[in-house]
Amino acid sequence: MDFMKPETVLDLNNIRQALVRMEDTIVFNLIERSQFYLSPLVYKSNYVRIPDFDGSFLQWTLLQQERIHSQVRRYEAPDEEPFNPTKLLPSLLPPVNYPKILANYSKEVNVNEEIYQFYVENIVPKISCKEGDQLENLGSVAVSDIECLQSISRRIHFGKFVAEAKFQLDKQLYTKLIKEKDIESIEKSITNSAVEQKILERLVDKSRSYGTDPLMRYSQNPQSKVDPEIIVKLYKEFIIPVTKKVEVEYLLRRLEDTQ
Amino acid sequence: MDFMKPETVLDLNNIRQALVRMEDTIVFNLIERSQFYLSPLVYKSNYVRIPDFDGSFLQWTLLQQERIHSQVRRYEAPDEEPFNPTKLLPSLLPPVNYPKILANYSKEVNVNEEIYQFYVENIVPKISCKEGDQLENLGSVAVSDIECLQSISRRIHFGKFVAEAKFQLDKQLYTKLIKEKDIESIEKSITNSAVEQKILERLVDKSRSYGTDPLMRYSQNPQSKVDPEIIVKLYKEFIIPVTKKVEVEYLLRRLEDTQ
Repeated sequence: MDFMKPETVLDLNNIRQALVRMEDTIVFNLIERSQFYLSPLVYKSNYVRIPDFDGSFLQWTLLQQERIHSQVRRYEAPDEEPFNPTKLLPSLLPPVNYPKILANYSKEVNVNEEIYQFYVENIVPKISCKEGDQLENLGSVAVSDIECLQSISRRIHFGKFVAEAKFQLDKQLYTKLIKEKDIESIEKSITNSAVEQKILERLVDKSRSYGTDPLMRYSQNPQSKVDPEIIVKLYKEFIIPVTKKVEVEYLLRRLEDTQ
Repeated sequence: MDFMKPETVLDLNNIRQALVRMEDTIVFNLIERSQFYLSPLVYKSNYVRIPDFDGSFLQWTLLQQERIHSQVRRYEAPDEEPFNPTKLLPSLLPPVNYPKILANYSKEVNVNEEIYQFYVENIVPKISCKEGDQLENLGSVAVSDIECLQSISRRIHFGKFVAEAKFQLDKQLYTKLIKEKDIESIEKSITNSAVEQKILERLVDKSRSYGTDPLMRYSQNPQSKVDPEIIVKLYKEFIIPVTKKVEVEYLLRRLEDTQ
C-alpha cells in the first residue's frame, strides 16, 4: 500500500491484495506462538511486580513496545492502531504528511481492547503447544504475543479502507443508510459472502503450507504446526465479524466528515 | 529446547531439531522484510537526529528493543546474545536459575557485529522489493530488520551447543586439539558435509513453500516472495561458516572451564 497515493489505496482490488498478504503474516505469527506453552503467568495481573505499573506482564511489554514504536511514528500511519493510545511518546522522526485518505475521526475507531481480550482468552489456549508455564520463556511468549496481536489488529482495522472505498463508490446510498441509522442494510452492503468463503478456503491451504515442514508434505501424517481449523475459526468467528464491526462503526460516523 | 534439562539440550538430535525449526523463523522473517524497500536511510548514521545517540536509525531502534528485552530477561538465556551487550538494563523478572550447560565464558563469544554488518550490506539489498526509500515506512523496516537480525543471531550462536555437545562426546580428542591449537582439525571434526547439504536442499523447499501463495503453486509462474537461491546462498556463504566460527571460538577456550 502506498499511502501517498490515495487513489490506489481506495481501490478495492489493492485493498484485497493487502488483506491477502496480511493472512500470511498472521499465519506465520500464530505458528511462531505455537512453539510456546500456554503461559498463564504472562497474562496474570501483577504477577511480575513492576514499579508504577498495574497490569500483566504482557500489558507491560506491549506498552514498552508501543512507546518505542510511537517514537518511530508507527501510529501516525493510517493503518496502525495502538493498544495504548493514551500512553504514547512523541515521534523522533519528522511527521509524514499523509494525504487525506480516511475520515478525520478514523483513529477513534479502535477495537484493540476487544482484540486483546479475545486473543488472550480464545486464541492462546488453542494454539499454544502445552498447558502451564515454562518460566524461562515468559519474555519470549510476550514478544511473540505482541506480533500476533499487532498483525491481527492491523488486519481488522484495515476494514476502514474497505468502508471508505465503498462509501466513495456509492455516496448516495450510504448517506441515506447512515442518516437512517440502518445498521442492518449497511452490514449487508459491505458483506460479500463469496469473498469470505474464499478467504476461509485459502487459510486452510496457507496454514498447511506454511505450518508443515515441506519435507513432510508427502508423509503419512504431515502435521501442521497449528491446526488449520483453528485459524479458519479465528477468521470466521472473530476477524471477519470484528472487521465488519469496524466498517460499520466507521461508516455510521461518516457524515461527520464534511470534506 | 528445555534449558532446565541440560542432558536434553546437549543431545545432538535435539539440537538439530531446534536448528531445523529456526530455519522456518528465518525464512518467515526474510519474507516479511521483502515487502519493504531497500531503505538506505534506515542504515545511515545520524539521518534521524536523536538526542544523546550517535548511529543509524536501525541501531537506535535495536538498542531500545534490546533494553526492553533485557528487562524481560532475554539475554540471560543461554541461546540469546544481544547486539548491545554493554548497554542493557537490569531484569524486572527474578533470575532464572539455569543449570550449567555451556562454559562460563560462553556469553563472551558474540559475533553480532559481524552479523549486523553482513545483514545490512549483503542481505537487505538482495531481499528488499525495490531500490530507494519509502519515507513513511522507515519504522516498519527497522522493526522487520530486527526480527531478521535476532533470528539469524540465535541460529548462529546455537553453534555453542553443538560445540559443547561434541566436546562432551570426545573430551580426549578435543583436549588434544585445543592444546595444540589445531584449528584445522577442530573445524574438520565439527563439519558434517552431508548435514550441510541437506540444510541447503531443505531451504529451497521451505523458501518455495512458505514464500508462495499456496493457490499459486500450480500456476505457470508461482513466484516465491524471496528467491530461494538467495536464502540458500545466505546459509552457504554466511550462516553455516559463521556458525562454525562460533563453534571453533568456543572450543578453543574450552579448557579455561575446569568443571
